[in-house]
Amino acid sequence: MNEFELIAHLTNALPTNQTVVAGAGDDCAVLDLGVPEKLILFKTDAVVEGIHFTKETPPEKIGRKALARCLSDIAAMAGTPTAALVTLALPKAFDPESVAKIYDGLNALAAQTGVAIVGGETTTNPERMLISIALLGTVPRGKPILRRGAKVGDAIFVTGELGGSLAGKHLEFEPRLAEARWLAEHFQLHTLMDLSDGLAGDLRHILNASQVGAVLLKSALPVSRAAKLAAKRRAGTLAPPKPAALAALTDGEDFELLFTLASPDAVKLLDAWKQQFPKLKLSCVGKIVADAGIFLRDQHGAHKLNAHGYAHFA
Amino acid sequence: MNEFELIAHLTNALPTNQTVVAGAGDDCAVLDLGVPEKLILFKTDAVVEGIHFTKETPPEKIGRKALARCLSDIAAMAGTPTAALVTLALPKAFDPESVAKIYDGLNALAAQTGVAIVGGETTTNPERMLISIALLGTVPRGKPILRRGAKVGDAIFVTGELGGSLAGKHLEFEPRLAEARWLAEHFQLHTLMDLSDGLAGDLRHILNASQVGAVLLKSALPVSRAAKLAAKRRAGTLAPPKPAALAALTDGEDFELLFTLASPDAVKLLDAWKQQFPKLKLSCVGKIVADAGIFLRDQHGAHKLNAHGYAHFA
Repeated sequence: MNEFELIAHLTNALPTNQTVVAGAGDDCAVLDLGVPEKLILFKTDAVVEGIHFTKETPPEKIGRKALARCLSDIAAMAGTPTAALVTLALPKAFDPESVAKIYDGLNALAAQTGVAIVGGETTTNPERMLISIALLGTVPRGKPILRRGAKVGDAIFVTGELGGSLAGKHLEFEPRLAEARWLAEHFQLHTLMDLSDGLAGDLRHILNASQVGAVLLKSALPVSRAAKLAAKRRAGTLAPPKPAALAALTDGEDFELLFTLASPDAVKLLDAWKQQFPKLKLSCVGKIVADAGIFLRDQHGAHKLNAHGYAHFA
Repeated sequence: MNEFELIAHLTNALPTNQTVVAGAGDDCAVLDLGVPEKLILFKTDAVVEGIHFTKETPPEKIGRKALARCLSDIAAMAGTPTAALVTLALPKAFDPESVAKIYDGLNALAAQTGVAIVGGETTTNPERMLISIALLGTVPRGKPILRRGAKVGDAIFVTGELGGSLAGKHLEFEPRLAEARWLAEHFQLHTLMDLSDGLAGDLRHILNASQVGAVLLKSALPVSRAAKLAAKRRAGTLAPPKPAALAALTDGEDFELLFTLASPDAVKLLDAWKQQFPKLKLSCVGKIVADAGIFLRDQHGAHKLNAHGYAHFA
């Protein structure tokens, strides 16, 4: 049983109550706690030493990343973050100065995004550091933008550039909070999520939840410079080749927005976006189709991607 | 720098915003998110293999304990729990059946207390299992019952029996949710918290926050049977003696309620409690005084407890 199978099994029959608007399976849980014009967003996310950061990562960036990942999930619901709790699980021989710097990075991003840090706890995890953030946010009442709303014919968009995040961006990315709120206010988004496991993997969550498929246009993928550089470097080595477009499809931790809306809105959106966010790329990378699966179209035709996002790259 | 010193340093200058009613330093954070008649309670708590449970602990009880600890903190604010997220950090070679049983224990307690489990995540912690729960609750608007409200002359109460929890109670305790709500509805509590680090240690949090001291009456301490048995067993060994009353003062994980209220209400409370909760002991264990510190009174006089809750036991 892998992680996804385990989650599917565990989330099959969870206790619920009348406050739950959306439970397990979306970017955040959505609760109705009786705020007249708002619903509550609730999210946790953990980073673990040796997996999401290393002993060499500057501690300020560890703290920043821990909170930024959670903020990206609030952005994925077009929400506004409110308050966070910080769980620090530390080896016994922790360096207090380094822990203080973790908080410096975390606090700076919290202040920048209007988030109150309202407590948490320190506990012991003898072998490695683990930081878990619990974050609350709000979103205007109405239909929250979930993963299950994609419709055949929708245009598929992503913000920014994709791939190669582990070269540096994963420690410095900007959660797309303002962009997501603007999108939700001005356009009728059918689905919205953030990219954490790679476009191919995350898009599949939308497709499965919406029972549709997608065609992506290879030439439209906004491949990052980091992904191109990595592809070039690999080309001179014995490592198996990894074309930059494959990296854009399968590298994790992009933390950009992925969303769909009705095709007739696409041109209007691209124009308005350029006015509003001139420095951030917005790309229409494909469309939603009825046939299940993800197809990548290039000059040679359309190739179905396998479960890991791979396909024949020409 | 120990855990408490680190926390004091870290919580010195946390980012805040206008939603924060009470931040770090109480049993739960208290937020005003605009629910007309309620404030929001927000809490996280983690249990770690080898510290809060062992490889031999039945998995159902691990899951139950993880949630119960957080519920006890909601009880400590006289609140009602609403929804929880579950973070499971697992070694790579986890046993899916055992993880499912952890959820069984957790889900059963959630259903029993009206809590919705609205998601969470699984991540990797290679060497040991760690479970963190993030819990939301509500409490009627008005002044939340914090730790800083103790007044000279207050009577000090505890529910249940104290000491020896690690012999079994720590895996099976009932969070005192109904009792705390009843107390807050019917009496003017000045302070309220739950006992997790032992009466002597936890009372000190109230005393420091309220800038007062306390006299405890040794003969009034509700010493548990488990603490008495443990004291007897130690008496026959080479281990240093640990009188049962000391265990009641210093053993952790009691998860009973500790509260204070004005002395004139004490007798009325004891009478009403017996009617309402005939099966659960309620003990008046001492009173709040002006002099800083905790004094333990027995037939030989009053002895000041040291930082670890120890004193000369006659």
